[in-house]
Amino acid sequence: MSGWVKIAGLGPGNEGLVTPEVTAALDEATDVVGYIPYVARVAERAGLTLHASDNRVEIDRSQHALQLAAEGKRVVVVSSGDPGVFAMAAAVFEALENGPEEWRNLQIDVLPGITAMLAAAARAGAPLGHDFCTINLSDNLKPWWLIEKRLRLAAQADFSMAFYNPRSKSRPEGFVKTLKILRDECEPKRLILFARAVSRADEAIRVSTLAEATPDMADMQTVVLVGSSRTRLIERDGTPIIYTPRFTPDEDQAEGQE
Amino acid sequence: MSGWVKIAGLGPGNEGLVTPEVTAALDEATDVVGYIPYVARVAERAGLTLHASDNRVEIDRSQHALQLAAEGKRVVVVSSGDPGVFAMAAAVFEALENGPEEWRNLQIDVLPGITAMLAAAARAGAPLGHDFCTINLSDNLKPWWLIEKRLRLAAQADFSMAFYNPRSKSRPEGFVKTLKILRDECEPKRLILFARAVSRADEAIRVSTLAEATPDMADMQTVVLVGSSRTRLIERDGTPIIYTPRFTPDEDQAEGQE
Repeated sequence: MSGWVKIAGLGPGNEGLVTPEVTAALDEATDVVGYIPYVARVAERAGLTLHASDNRVEIDRSQHALQLAAEGKRVVVVSSGDPGVFAMAAAVFEALENGPEEWRNLQIDVLPGITAMLAAAARAGAPLGHDFCTINLSDNLKPWWLIEKRLRLAAQADFSMAFYNPRSKSRPEGFVKTLKILRDECEPKRLILFARAVSRADEAIRVSTLAEATPDMADMQTVVLVGSSRTRLIERDGTPIIYTPRFTPDEDQAEGQE
Repeated sequence: MSGWVKIAGLGPGNEGLVTPEVTAALDEATDVVGYIPYVARVAERAGLTLHASDNRVEIDRSQHALQLAAEGKRVVVVSSGDPGVFAMAAAVFEALENGPEEWRNLQIDVLPGITAMLAAAARAGAPLGHDFCTINLSDNLKPWWLIEKRLRLAAQADFSMAFYNPRSKSRPEGFVKTLKILRDECEPKRLILFARAVSRADEAIRVSTLAEATPDMADMQTVVLVGSSRTRLIERDGTPIIYTPRFTPDEDQAEGQE
């Protein structure tokens, strides 16, 4: 029997957001490879070996998955969210490109999942309902100047924005700087949403503005969404709705092109 | 019994990409509202009324859904892909904001789905594996100058890009202009992916470069993905893999900040 690798997105945490395609792949797998908390979401069963590894060993884990497949195993690499958005898919292809020739034509499929920003946006209303961008705020794998450049250009383009990995204990200053840059580029009333542990039991959604946001509103479990200049808030009982209208009138030209 | 509205994403077409949460909502619904081809994906059953409407009547359709819910119905508004990405969620909230006060505190949930760019990226490898932006190329609801501005700033930020609605019969020139702008801003070997009818029986994936891409490679069924300057191609049997590495070395500074 020939082996394969499926790089699968488990969604943000709620089992109601795992696609049937991913569930079927897990049912067929002989081996599951991934970061400890994601592998913990897969039910144990006879014939299935779970290989849980720590954070920051993405290339080792990818090589292990490809090697198992080359030996004939049916391997699911599990990611949170969508595997193609700041998750395992890029790591597996990097390992493939730099690996032995015999891996090159292995059957490898990416199974998409609900990525955190889309789950967070859904909880808030439709803040990404118009053009938007998605930025990983961690400078572990890229220089900070590139993050700052992207933040400024994204604000000038009037994109809504989604931020992954906004703040961790080892780099507490990045999100402080991010808020400063955004306050430089955007008006104080710009809407900002902090969505923590989306779709899980401890989910917490908080709507704020750039003027009122503080760095401690974000941590590594949080996705941060920033509206465009046109994003609107609808007051109602409980958490308000925020959405970005589909329509941009041409009268914005003078302001937009100055 | 009190009514509700759930704005649900059906994913790009394959039933294996419909989340269990969306399937459960459809099972509980009394009414389904949506654009004709999306309503056609919902199985008929006793107790369920299907309301299919034509394209470009999103606000009428949203008002209808909210009115039905106000009357006590359990209404699912169906979108293709994810309802929050160039789909029905923003339209429903626009109708809500401008509608009667009695709608304001209706129970309204958005159920996320697999949006086309993530399904397309999965088929190609991981072209959106690093920071990226998402732009609707239709100028039906926004002026063309704003699209051009966003394209140029996105290229200068070195985002990967995903384009929805790249080209229709009624506006054939927009994608011609888009390719010109990208050739202005990016190198000729920049990778570009045309993903048509992703996850459906007639799916067609084509990898090209900015130098070789032609406008007819896109239509309204196509999502177009453009790599960043660092996106790589892995040759193998069949369609090559394209992916954007997770790591950007600081040596890019001189080039990136000039």
